[in-house]
Amino acid sequence: MGNKRKKISVIGSGFTGTTTALMLAQKELGDIVLVDIPNMENPTKGKALDMLEASPVQGFDANIIGTSNYEDTRDSDLVIITAGIARKPGMSRDDLVNTNAKIMKSVTQEIVKYSKDTIIIVLTNPVDAMTYTVFNESGFPKERVIGQSGVLDTARFRTFVAKELNLSVKDITGFVLGGHGDDMVPLIRYSYAGGIPLEKLIPKDRLDEIVQRTRTGGGEIVNLLGNGSAYYAPAASLTVMAEAILKDQRRVLPSIAYLEGEYGYNDIYLGVPTILGGNGIEQIIELDLTEDEKAALDKSANSVKHVLEVLQ
Amino acid sequence: MGNKRKKISVIGSGFTGTTTALMLAQKELGDIVLVDIPNMENPTKGKALDMLEASPVQGFDANIIGTSNYEDTRDSDLVIITAGIARKPGMSRDDLVNTNAKIMKSVTQEIVKYSKDTIIIVLTNPVDAMTYTVFNESGFPKERVIGQSGVLDTARFRTFVAKELNLSVKDITGFVLGGHGDDMVPLIRYSYAGGIPLEKLIPKDRLDEIVQRTRTGGGEIVNLLGNGSAYYAPAASLTVMAEAILKDQRRVLPSIAYLEGEYGYNDIYLGVPTILGGNGIEQIIELDLTEDEKAALDKSANSVKHVLEVLQ
Amino acid sequence: MGNKRKKISVIGSGFTGTTTALMLAQKELGDIVLVDIPNMENPTKGKALDMLEASPVQGFDANIIGTSNYEDTRDSDLVIITAGIARKPGMSRDDLVNTNAKIMKSVTQEIVKYSKDTIIIVLTNPVDAMTYTVFNESGFPKERVIGQSGVLDTARFRTFVAKELNLSVKDITGFVLGGHGDDMVPLIRYSYAGGIPLEKLIPKDRLDEIVQRTRTGGGEIVNLLGNGSAYYAPAASLTVMAEAILKDQRRVLPSIAYLEGEYGYNDIYLGVPTILGGNGIEQIIELDLTEDEKAALDKSANSVKHVLEVLQ
Amino acid sequence: MGNKRKKISVIGSGFTGTTTALMLAQKELGDIVLVDIPNMENPTKGKALDMLEASPVQGFDANIIGTSNYEDTRDSDLVIITAGIARKPGMSRDDLVNTNAKIMKSVTQEIVKYSKDTIIIVLTNPVDAMTYTVFNESGFPKERVIGQSGVLDTARFRTFVAKELNLSVKDITGFVLGGHGDDMVPLIRYSYAGGIPLEKLIPKDRLDEIVQRTRTGGGEIVNLLGNGSAYYAPAASLTVMAEAILKDQRRVLPSIAYLEGEYGYNDIYLGVPTILGGNGIEQIIELDLTEDEKAALDKSANSVKHVLEVLQ
Repeated sequence: MGNKRKKISVIGSGFTGTTTALMLAQKELGDIVLVDIPNMENPTKGKALDMLEASPVQGFDANIIGTSNYEDTRDSDLVIITAGIARKPGMSRDDLVNTNAKIMKSVTQEIVKYSKDTIIIVLTNPVDAMTYTVFNESGFPKERVIGQSGVLDTARFRTFVAKELNLSVKDITGFVLGGHGDDMVPLIRYSYAGGIPLEKLIPKDRLDEIVQRTRTGGGEIVNLLGNGSAYYAPAASLTVMAEAILKDQRRVLPSIAYLEGEYGYNDIYLGVPTILGGNGIEQIIELDLTEDEKAALDKSANSVKHVLEVLQ
Repeated sequence: MGNKRKKISVIGSGFTGTTTALMLAQKELGDIVLVDIPNMENPTKGKALDMLEASPVQGFDANIIGTSNYEDTRDSDLVIITAGIARKPGMSRDDLVNTNAKIMKSVTQEIVKYSKDTIIIVLTNPVDAMTYTVFNESGFPKERVIGQSGVLDTARFRTFVAKELNLSVKDITGFVLGGHGDDMVPLIRYSYAGGIPLEKLIPKDRLDEIVQRTRTGGGEIVNLLGNGSAYYAPAASLTVMAEAILKDQRRVLPSIAYLEGEYGYNDIYLGVPTILGGNGIEQIIELDLTEDEKAALDKSANSVKHVLEVLQ
Repeated sequence: MGNKRKKISVIGSGFTGTTTALMLAQKELGDIVLVDIPNMENPTKGKALDMLEASPVQGFDANIIGTSNYEDTRDSDLVIITAGIARKPGMSRDDLVNTNAKIMKSVTQEIVKYSKDTIIIVLTNPVDAMTYTVFNESGFPKERVIGQSGVLDTARFRTFVAKELNLSVKDITGFVLGGHGDDMVPLIRYSYAGGIPLEKLIPKDRLDEIVQRTRTGGGEIVNLLGNGSAYYAPAASLTVMAEAILKDQRRVLPSIAYLEGEYGYNDIYLGVPTILGGNGIEQIIELDLTEDEKAALDKSANSVKHVLEVLQ
Repeated sequence: MGNKRKKISVIGSGFTGTTTALMLAQKELGDIVLVDIPNMENPTKGKALDMLEASPVQGFDANIIGTSNYEDTRDSDLVIITAGIARKPGMSRDDLVNTNAKIMKSVTQEIVKYSKDTIIIVLTNPVDAMTYTVFNESGFPKERVIGQSGVLDTARFRTFVAKELNLSVKDITGFVLGGHGDDMVPLIRYSYAGGIPLEKLIPKDRLDEIVQRTRTGGGEIVNLLGNGSAYYAPAASLTVMAEAILKDQRRVLPSIAYLEGEYGYNDIYLGVPTILGGNGIEQIIELDLTEDEKAALDKSANSVKHVLEVLQ
């Protein structure tokens, strides 16, 4: 009995992992276990401690620890996987896929060993395939293995639209289907400013430019940074998904979900509108698509399948 | 007329600068201008953009830009200086001091050029001397040039005590005078858990260990990280000082303040309890010290003076 | 110079006025002056003091005073008018209108005397006519006199839809034009759950029922309470409008705005989509309406005009 | 499995009960069941609905229902009792005590029927005796039946001190033992501004006045209101206790706790410093008292005993 804090494990103590840990703690969503590999144990402990030392001033109550020992993740209510490598110069895409898949497998085995009933959110790229890998390896029911991509894509889209119209980001919404980045299938007709369809507020060619900028939004940050990739907006995206689940909010958010017939696809993880609540993905929302949209989604699904084939 | 957002410039786009920018934006304290040197302009823009793209999901309204052009800081309500180098292997302390002092001077000239009425908070180490340098260079009245150190030191102390007693950080307070880190003069008799003096709750030798751990709290993080230093707790500390000023809260917080006779010192910046409000340091609170405390504070003041002499 | 808190005066210390004061203070939007007539001075002071005594525990910094002296409202950044009487049994609608118009005039004269540059939000019913009265009496430019109705109507609509679909209120939006309550012109085609048009998610007849329930949403609360009318949702609505203005957020929110040709109307206050920012109503958004929608809006405009005629 | 929202039942839909419900919902601490007697069912439903309709605008996710059926409280994680009558002119204190005790008994029977493992916080006056009554009737272990008084008393004290010193309420703390109001035993030596003992900042006679004003703080509001008593600060006080329990924060807060030898008392509910966490009162903190303090606490304990005798 009694009221126990939730426990959230964040795998990977890179910038995205640590920023996610901070944002989760700031919202007092639970105690945080930040996990990395043994030879990163000390830096991971250092980041966790630094973050914990921010808590008296930020005014949040959350324990935050760094570890390389998965026993510390025991009985997690939620696990967020940010671990993995980024593509390096000279590395083939297939090498990237297989390296990260290997990481996903080993991470998943460890997670499952200690938290049989947890829910897992995956961020690692290529995220559709990596989520599929975690799903397979975990043996978890599909509603408890979820990939992040659409929340981030729409966050970027909303930011660009808010700038374009000089309006609060609070009143801009966006809508995407399909894969992350280049494969993103934006549904502009379901994107609004204050409820008003964007098509009525922004000329089509300008809107196309914004969509294109969104598609390459990750690359834009990579190019600017010169070294490394985005982590603030990805962390915020993971946090809002975590909040929807841990607080059982039943929010309508895009997730990478396992499809069994929805939108005409089978045995694939793909970005679709979902209801996120206490049980993970509580529902996949199916929408009628135009032919163009369906074609774009097919293309996106094919990309994912090609990546999955690399994994065989 | 009309209601304009506050404008906050953060100088230095390293981890502390960017984390501070994030925390300021999360609290919607104003629009943020993140400034770094020209050859860091793109990474600075990248971090600012990534952060801005977090705003729709985090739910805050704040413009955030990265720049190397001080014209963008024009009419700032507050400027926070995190720029500067860290001590590198083989570098003498004097070299560090003089290098950072040179940076402070040039940064201050630029700030003052565009924001004559602003308030400046300095984080750069050695912070007492660097705050003095900014004060001198700016020609600003003393209440508008403030150094950060005690908020961070007490945050660490509060964290360690909360752990020790297994209590919420919300109910632990700490109190320090004097310089940062090693020179810190903790006033244990003014430190409490739920209002109860810590001396009644923690054995003296254990409390001494906690104080010692606090003194070396920055180094603990440096050692764990292996590369780099703390930024979450420093950023949180800067943010709470910024909030007190921008919201005119008249909070009692330790600041590095310019002393003119207070505590028996003159023409020196030293850590003392202050009231932070809309005008910056609105008051320095003078306390009776025991002989031991006064001796420790003298030692701390002497350290600061030695650093200042290096600057001559 | 320096950073001063904003000042917000709330006229009327009934349930809506006091709840609004609480919500404004919780958000630390400024210091609050709660004003009522002289023979309510003590209860007004009592409510303000009780609220202030909640501040240490709720953790907000805001001064809150109760007064019957308009001098205390001097230099308000925002004034919210909730004063006025409710219709009593046996009272004709015309009597109500004229009594409240008289109150609006006297209140406005007092406000203007002390705060020439302020922005005024009106809640008092019938709100379209009362906002017009305040506009006339104040001599203020139209962007600085604003009526509340659509934020509340859509809040109710969003609540009913969230219940219907068992989804988070955070993901439901609604859209109304025209007058308050019965005269409300809902634009269902601009109303969504997670960006998906409600028409795709809820059968038409059920949606009609929800619209009808929204129209009579104020009456539903009145009937349940038996004595008195709604105040939580009205206060929350006023607070979000206040926040948009005081933080210069440029939010897209429905307001009762003075029309000069927009939507084909002139010299009338009517509910339309607006951009609320630091200057008040920064823009009225004009939309193409269907014939049905335009007819409904005409009906709504005529109702408002009839009330205005009573005032002549 | 899965993440379920907490459930909080608030008994009594008067001003304190409803304001508490609002504050709990604003913090998203759980879903709220607002309970009152059958002939208040409709107003209770009305207030709950009005509050729920504020949620889309305030941005909180919490279901809120009004009911007179205790079945709706089934499996509550926390129950807050605000029900009871206020003393009316001509009513003897003994009548008040016995009437409210009867209400406590019947309410407790209903609560226990549906939530055997819940935690109960009592606000109803005379609160020490009413908490005892609920404890007796519930058969619950002592750590799960808690009375509120000291959080409110210190909130008032902190407010008065913040005003006196023109400082943020965030930096003022207070400390009381014993009964509510007149019987309050303030420990001034444990009360601070920014960690500095108040005795160093405020002259003794002025501090005595502030203590006296705190003692009669409830009466001050009653006198100002003319009709009714304080509810904002009481609701905020209940909310912070609820938060400490539901989030397992282990906060140091004054509670009315069942004593078995602590401070030399037995079989009595009295205000003492406690640690509130997930299991309710996790610890009673015992402090050494001066003779004066002990004498005042004896007096306070005697008052409580006299009230308890009325109940026999």
